[in-house]
Amino acid sequence: MTVVSSGIDLLAAAVEAQAVPVSRVDWRPPMPGTEADLATVATDPRRYAANQDALAAMLGVTATLVDVAPASEVLGLERGQFLHAGPPITWERASGPLRGGLMAGAAFEGLVDDPEDAPALFESGSLSLDSCHHHGAVGPMAGVVTPSMWMFVLEDAATGRRTYCSLNEGLGKVLRYGAYEESVLVRLRWMRDVLGPLLQRAVRGTVGAGTTIDVTGILTQMLQMGDEAHNRNRAGTLMLLRDLSPALVTSGADSEDIAEVLRFVGANDHFFLNLAMPACKLALDAARDIPGSTMVVAMARNGTDFGIQVSGTGDEWFTGPAQVPEGLFLGEYGPEDANPDIGDSAITETAGIGGFAMATAPAIVRLVGGSVPDALAATRRMHEITLGENPRWIVPILEFQGTPTGIDVTRVCRTGILPQINTGMAGKVAGTGQVGAGLVNPPAEVFPAALARLAELSRQSRPTPAGH
Amino acid sequence: MTVVSSGIDLLAAAVEAQAVPVSRVDWRPPMPGTEADLATVATDPRRYAANQDALAAMLGVTATLVDVAPASEVLGLERGQFLHAGPPITWERASGPLRGGLMAGAAFEGLVDDPEDAPALFESGSLSLDSCHHHGAVGPMAGVVTPSMWMFVLEDAATGRRTYCSLNEGLGKVLRYGAYEESVLVRLRWMRDVLGPLLQRAVRGTVGAGTTIDVTGILTQMLQMGDEAHNRNRAGTLMLLRDLSPALVTSGADSEDIAEVLRFVGANDHFFLNLAMPACKLALDAARDIPGSTMVVAMARNGTDFGIQVSGTGDEWFTGPAQVPEGLFLGEYGPEDANPDIGDSAITETAGIGGFAMATAPAIVRLVGGSVPDALAATRRMHEITLGENPRWIVPILEFQGTPTGIDVTRVCRTGILPQINTGMAGKVAGTGQVGAGLVNPPAEVFPAALARLAELSRQSRPTPAGH
Repeated sequence: MTVVSSGIDLLAAAVEAQAVPVSRVDWRPPMPGTEADLATVATDPRRYAANQDALAAMLGVTATLVDVAPASEVLGLERGQFLHAGPPITWERASGPLRGGLMAGAAFEGLVDDPEDAPALFESGSLSLDSCHHHGAVGPMAGVVTPSMWMFVLEDAATGRRTYCSLNEGLGKVLRYGAYEESVLVRLRWMRDVLGPLLQRAVRGTVGAGTTIDVTGILTQMLQMGDEAHNRNRAGTLMLLRDLSPALVTSGADSEDIAEVLRFVGANDHFFLNLAMPACKLALDAARDIPGSTMVVAMARNGTDFGIQVSGTGDEWFTGPAQVPEGLFLGEYGPEDANPDIGDSAITETAGIGGFAMATAPAIVRLVGGSVPDALAATRRMHEITLGENPRWIVPILEFQGTPTGIDVTRVCRTGILPQINTGMAGKVAGTGQVGAGLVNPPAEVFPAALARLAELSRQSRPTPAGH
Repeated sequence: MTVVSSGIDLLAAAVEAQAVPVSRVDWRPPMPGTEADLATVATDPRRYAANQDALAAMLGVTATLVDVAPASEVLGLERGQFLHAGPPITWERASGPLRGGLMAGAAFEGLVDDPEDAPALFESGSLSLDSCHHHGAVGPMAGVVTPSMWMFVLEDAATGRRTYCSLNEGLGKVLRYGAYEESVLVRLRWMRDVLGPLLQRAVRGTVGAGTTIDVTGILTQMLQMGDEAHNRNRAGTLMLLRDLSPALVTSGADSEDIAEVLRFVGANDHFFLNLAMPACKLALDAARDIPGSTMVVAMARNGTDFGIQVSGTGDEWFTGPAQVPEGLFLGEYGPEDANPDIGDSAITETAGIGGFAMATAPAIVRLVGGSVPDALAATRRMHEITLGENPRWIVPILEFQGTPTGIDVTRVCRTGILPQINTGMAGKVAGTGQVGAGLVNPPAEVFPAALARLAELSRQSRPTPAGH
């Protein structure tokens, strides 16, 4: 239980003496210009039930890993089709790391021999770009998906709905951070030829033996093991290894290949991120399209634009300029090297983990900057803008309080508190790779824009007053 | 940094406002009857440097896993020899769970066909019992080691010193909790015939490939992943699996056996305890036998007696009656079913983890009873009775403060604060198995007894004053 205290210091002191976390939240004015829309939406008779439905739908989803297969098969992607992170964007407006990722993808697919030849092809308009989110998928950082890439396939058993995510390449010079040098392509080919097929055998073997690979359940455990499941996925990766290795060992594959897969996954603490993300999307997709709901169902960045989608406004994206994260830099890199915020990984914060669960991962403050009290305060602050708590995803250090879940556009506009996102930072020049990690917020204007649309829809939904 | 405040509330409030952990420690009287000995030991000119040396020696040890081999080989145990947890004890004084473990061990070694026939053999005096600690070994709960059991072999590369521990059987009906039914023996035989040999191949393969299995380093990570390495070893077990599985896969062993080993270890969150314990012993053994040092180098229980050993007093055990833990019980069991405290696993607290690191494992309060503030307070309180902090074993939530390390007999006597130990609870009737888990303290009298001996040795060490 977090006790929120405003002014009554005696209570706060008494509660503190019992060592219960206390946040002293000052009253804040609403975001400028939102007062009328807030009033309209607040009085929408559908709102309360719609948000309860959205939250319940989201919390009701259990995501299980059911398959690993090429994007050509499970997404129907064809040669020349590219998916990317964030809201839709053209090559012309794409940032360096997204361009770099697309160039790597074009070379990986054999559309060009040299990645440097890819820009001309993209400029010619002969290749197609679309958002991962429009295909049930999510991708970290550049989020580039091409037909030959293998995808995790997650399913909500109750509805059969599915989401997808590519396999994580590790850190450093990798496609998703915009690198396209030969080592990037060599790794992608090994992932296509060895990692993907062996993971498919392992997942099919595990599921075939009647064992459920419960990604939502692993996330529950991770939050008790120092992972916030965005910038830290160490325990999750280890639990995935534990769950898949028996079937991998008995899959009949070459033992040197099996050992190499175990070493690759074991050496990449971020491997599980690519399961956390589609698990979050699967939960949030269940909350889409509920008329009157003010709950955010996606936050995503393409490196140029930051976009949100809201349950009550359908597939419309509300976008603003992506911000440059603040944080810590690798080696010689500094703020001037960082690209604005990029990737679909903010789906974790949208679902109440990542930056929203910072309190459970205090070790991460050494990666992204900040202090332990900042981490505790961040989670407490996110409870101010969310509809509820997740009873399965709890934070032991906050007395087992559930993570703050279901970002409410009206609460964001009313308090001015923006969602906190943990993120990696890509170099702004295509080909650079990762330059750091840090914290970032959405551009504030996306929330008043979404609110305005919610207010407009609210007015349309109400019967014309009698006598008019 | 923990700020200890006594009375100056303004400072405490100011520090609290910055969210730094604060403990308000009231002055407490020394343990009754210890004043004279405290004065003697406090003025021992050797004490300060001796304790600094003891702490430094302990903190300087890096424990690596170098082999897995039968106790007959690495400890030279012969048929009819039994090791057990805690200070030395006879069959006549042994508690139910220790007797049950010895009965299981006798049947496992083929000394009797039916475990129920073993007591007569022990009563006849034809079998030998000795403390694990006297052979460089430690064992959880009953801690029974017989010649055919496989042991983890840990080494301090700097000195070549080694310590040993048996393999963890999992929870429920197991030898170490005093169970001896057929399922216990079946599991022990599988561990002897499959698990031990395969782990040997995996460890030798890993080490042979030039990879160090750094148990001290894994403990560093565990403390950032919700494990306190006594009652919770989940992350440690997963990291061990990660580190051993590649060599296990390429060991040439039967793939079904490999898969079974992966499943067995993966299903037992306590597996790593049997590596944490000898790592702690290896560190503490480096601090033994330093004249004038008041640092505790072992705390161990045999189910009847709780004993401590102190650096400045050699191999002497100071013992008192083991206490019954307070905590939570499994199923229908209650306090009347619990045996007094048993096992060498308090070596973890002696080294500054386990109950001393409760703050880093708040999820554990649901296993042992208590609350999250209790967990934070426990770690802070242990700083009152320890010589220093471990710079490698840090607690993120306490602003990366090192764990309280090096229990000081003089501080325990001066404050009356007893070490806090997390523990499992065995049924007091032989054959029962585990009945719960909880918290326990040593019997208070062992510390004044050790202090008296330190004072005696201190007086002997001082030159006779001139002129007398």
